[in-house]
Amino acid sequence: MTAYSELSAHHGRIAALSNALGILHWDNAAVMPKGAAPRRAESVALLQVLRHGMATDPRIGDWLGEAEADDGLGAWERANLREIRRIWTAETALPADLVEASSRATSTCEMAWRQARQDSDFVGLLPHLSEVLRLQREIGQAKGEKLGLSPYDALLNDYEPGGRSDQIDRLFDDLAAFLPGLLDEVLAAQARRPTDAEPQGPFPVETQRALGVRMMEALGYDFDRGRLDVSAHPFCGGADDDVRITTRYDENDFSSALMGVLHETGHALYEQGRPQGWMSQPVGHARGMSLHESQSLLIEMQACRSREFLRFAAPIMRDAFGASGPGWEPDAVWRRYNRVAPGFIRVDADEVTYPAHVILRYRLEKALIADDLPLAELPAAWNAQMKELLGLTPPNDRVGCLQDIHWPSGGWGYFPTYTLGALTAAQLFDAARRAVPDIPSAIERGDFAPLLGWLRANVHAQASLLETDELLIQATGRTLDPAVFKAHLRRRYVEES
Amino acid sequence: MTAYSELSAHHGRIAALSNALGILHWDNAAVMPKGAAPRRAESVALLQVLRHGMATDPRIGDWLGEAEADDGLGAWERANLREIRRIWTAETALPADLVEASSRATSTCEMAWRQARQDSDFVGLLPHLSEVLRLQREIGQAKGEKLGLSPYDALLNDYEPGGRSDQIDRLFDDLAAFLPGLLDEVLAAQARRPTDAEPQGPFPVETQRALGVRMMEALGYDFDRGRLDVSAHPFCGGADDDVRITTRYDENDFSSALMGVLHETGHALYEQGRPQGWMSQPVGHARGMSLHESQSLLIEMQACRSREFLRFAAPIMRDAFGASGPGWEPDAVWRRYNRVAPGFIRVDADEVTYPAHVILRYRLEKALIADDLPLAELPAAWNAQMKELLGLTPPNDRVGCLQDIHWPSGGWGYFPTYTLGALTAAQLFDAARRAVPDIPSAIERGDFAPLLGWLRANVHAQASLLETDELLIQATGRTLDPAVFKAHLRRRYVEES
Repeated sequence: MTAYSELSAHHGRIAALSNALGILHWDNAAVMPKGAAPRRAESVALLQVLRHGMATDPRIGDWLGEAEADDGLGAWERANLREIRRIWTAETALPADLVEASSRATSTCEMAWRQARQDSDFVGLLPHLSEVLRLQREIGQAKGEKLGLSPYDALLNDYEPGGRSDQIDRLFDDLAAFLPGLLDEVLAAQARRPTDAEPQGPFPVETQRALGVRMMEALGYDFDRGRLDVSAHPFCGGADDDVRITTRYDENDFSSALMGVLHETGHALYEQGRPQGWMSQPVGHARGMSLHESQSLLIEMQACRSREFLRFAAPIMRDAFGASGPGWEPDAVWRRYNRVAPGFIRVDADEVTYPAHVILRYRLEKALIADDLPLAELPAAWNAQMKELLGLTPPNDRVGCLQDIHWPSGGWGYFPTYTLGALTAAQLFDAARRAVPDIPSAIERGDFAPLLGWLRANVHAQASLLETDELLIQATGRTLDPAVFKAHLRRRYVEES
Repeated sequence: MTAYSELSAHHGRIAALSNALGILHWDNAAVMPKGAAPRRAESVALLQVLRHGMATDPRIGDWLGEAEADDGLGAWERANLREIRRIWTAETALPADLVEASSRATSTCEMAWRQARQDSDFVGLLPHLSEVLRLQREIGQAKGEKLGLSPYDALLNDYEPGGRSDQIDRLFDDLAAFLPGLLDEVLAAQARRPTDAEPQGPFPVETQRALGVRMMEALGYDFDRGRLDVSAHPFCGGADDDVRITTRYDENDFSSALMGVLHETGHALYEQGRPQGWMSQPVGHARGMSLHESQSLLIEMQACRSREFLRFAAPIMRDAFGASGPGWEPDAVWRRYNRVAPGFIRVDADEVTYPAHVILRYRLEKALIADDLPLAELPAAWNAQMKELLGLTPPNDRVGCLQDIHWPSGGWGYFPTYTLGALTAAQLFDAARRAVPDIPSAIERGDFAPLLGWLRANVHAQASLLETDELLIQATGRTLDPAVFKAHLRRRYVEES
């Protein structure tokens, strides 16, 4: 066997183990009985240790050196080596005791956070979060030294390969300057719109589910390689060729489950569209979290909150529930689905105010990792940013700096990918419509094939062949440009009505 | 750490891996989308290789030697060492290439069998089955040499630790002599019974499921540590503290799903009743397949096809389906659930004719492993035994020697445990009623606590502390005695009516 084929076989085995973990994670969230939790945690921890052992196998370093000197490899093989080298460098940067200490600290902190959030008790969380932060800094430092990055950028790169905070600073500063003024215009425009009757439930869960399945099928989701289930926190997970999404149902409001299904279907289409032959190799993985979020937001926000989609979908929704009335007119549904209202909670935010929530978190976590902001001052700094970006002051930390699980659970460097994803979604959808002008009218007919075809060719089937910037240039002609997102917001929330 | 605690920690890790495999197996059978199968097979194969590596870790041998010399261990610890030694001896008896060759041969043969059964083509299966048999003989020989057993007994011991074919011969010869005469009496008695109207469906799946759940709860199944789902072939599986059962529903006949649920609940109660502190150690495992089958048959056949249970359950069934009529009277339901009819198919057989199916298979597989019967002559030998034991001649091999998956899939030595389980069930239920006379009247009230309490104390919580024979003597006062089963059959199928 050549060094390259050794590497490829080894990473096939790592993928087989990751797939097992993916199914256990799905099981945990969707179907596991609660008494199974303690022993399940042992199984997952063991598989993670085994995976870490395989990912840091010292033979990888030798194989890499040899394979990189091989001139006979094609573009995908070379990109695969690039990805393997990247992962190997990051995985081996950390001493095993740091990995273990961080795993233990985040488990403890996550539990403390559940209580602290409930009690709005930041001071109670402080010692735990402080320990997590200390270890995240250490992890960032260790990886950063190996990768030639700042600690924050090293953390960011786990979610967004190639991501750099100086670029994000520029994009986010631009947005932060633009959004407050836009928000005033949006609220003024919205005040001039008619008020619509809210459809009244109950909306039976089985009907909601059937509606979700119908829409997933229309979007091109492959049920032979996935499932739709229920979990407390909706997600897209599972394994290669087994991409499962979840939602949660509220019998008084069907739209939250449906929009959740459409969002997760966007993620799932990306996963299902990765190239079969490379699926279990690093080059076959999704490119990064900003592109992943771009796919969910492109489907949910760009495609499925559009007039075209709702002209197709509103009558189907109405008929599914055996309902009638002016509240089911596509225009009324469109207005409900595109209502803007500043609030404290990120996950409830609309498309216009969502970036403010992300920018705030990004600025704070960067300052915390750089030790420019003492952790004890986080609540005050949070509230000051909320005031500046959204004009709101949280009445307590429960709806302020304690609302998200990311920091307690060690997800530092993740937040910016939400808004990078929103910008990317706008730019990709814009490029798709220019390349295939029929996309909006096809959507109005319930035909997603033209959109999916473009996404398959330009994003999904590319997997990790290119770096994110290269992919974006190839697909849209330029690097990430907030102008497209800004124009989208203005068009949808100010100009349309 | 002492050698004992090293062993214990190591087997805790093996259990964590086995639990992961158990959940993947459940997922496979109950929820996996079909397109996921090829990659799932890779994940399962990898975890099995990792588990085999852990189970044959050479340190186990050293730890065992040291721990067995430790005088300070209690009875459970010593029994744990006995089990660990037994498993270690069997696992290390086989060279890795034999394990791999057998795994490959059974996969191929299983696939060939699906086609051969459909086409009733024994000759087409012959080369594949011949290879599986050759490797099973080799496995039996290799294990037998290490364990001081004949090849067949070595195979049997994988399912039934301590099982010996000379004992089984005596039990089965006794049954084979008894059953044909009994069957004539049963059929004569049955001819004198009234014919009952068959309740007419459809019986909605959701109602059937709710009825199953109701009965599982009555039996004492813990839904905090398990689930009820659907699969093509009902089974009990999952993991420690996560014991999941499945059934399949037929809207024209609710009793097959319900009896399946009761049967699998019997298995699940055993698994859920194993002692918490030992659950992940070999001594904490269920004792063997005959005891396992005894628990499912005790619940299904002994308890839940009794008059007492059906006086409790028949009105609940009737009300669940909103039905009425004489077909729902407990006596009528009892007659339907205890109808005897000789047939070709083992899995459709009643309690009286089932042992004939097992005895036939046991005799043939023993002769095949011993090379006393050429594989090519299997169909003729099968049909001769069917004629002798049940008076029937299969019209083709599809309903004859091709009907079961056990031989093609490498499950040689498994069959006798079904009937050993039936004998054990009768003997345990008899002892339970003698010890706790209130058991039948409690069942008639829908109260399974007295029965479950006895089973917990005498079987479930014993796990593998004792050998099977010792457990039976402790619980019932004697080793396995077919007289109790024979008396049960005569009482239920000849004397009652």
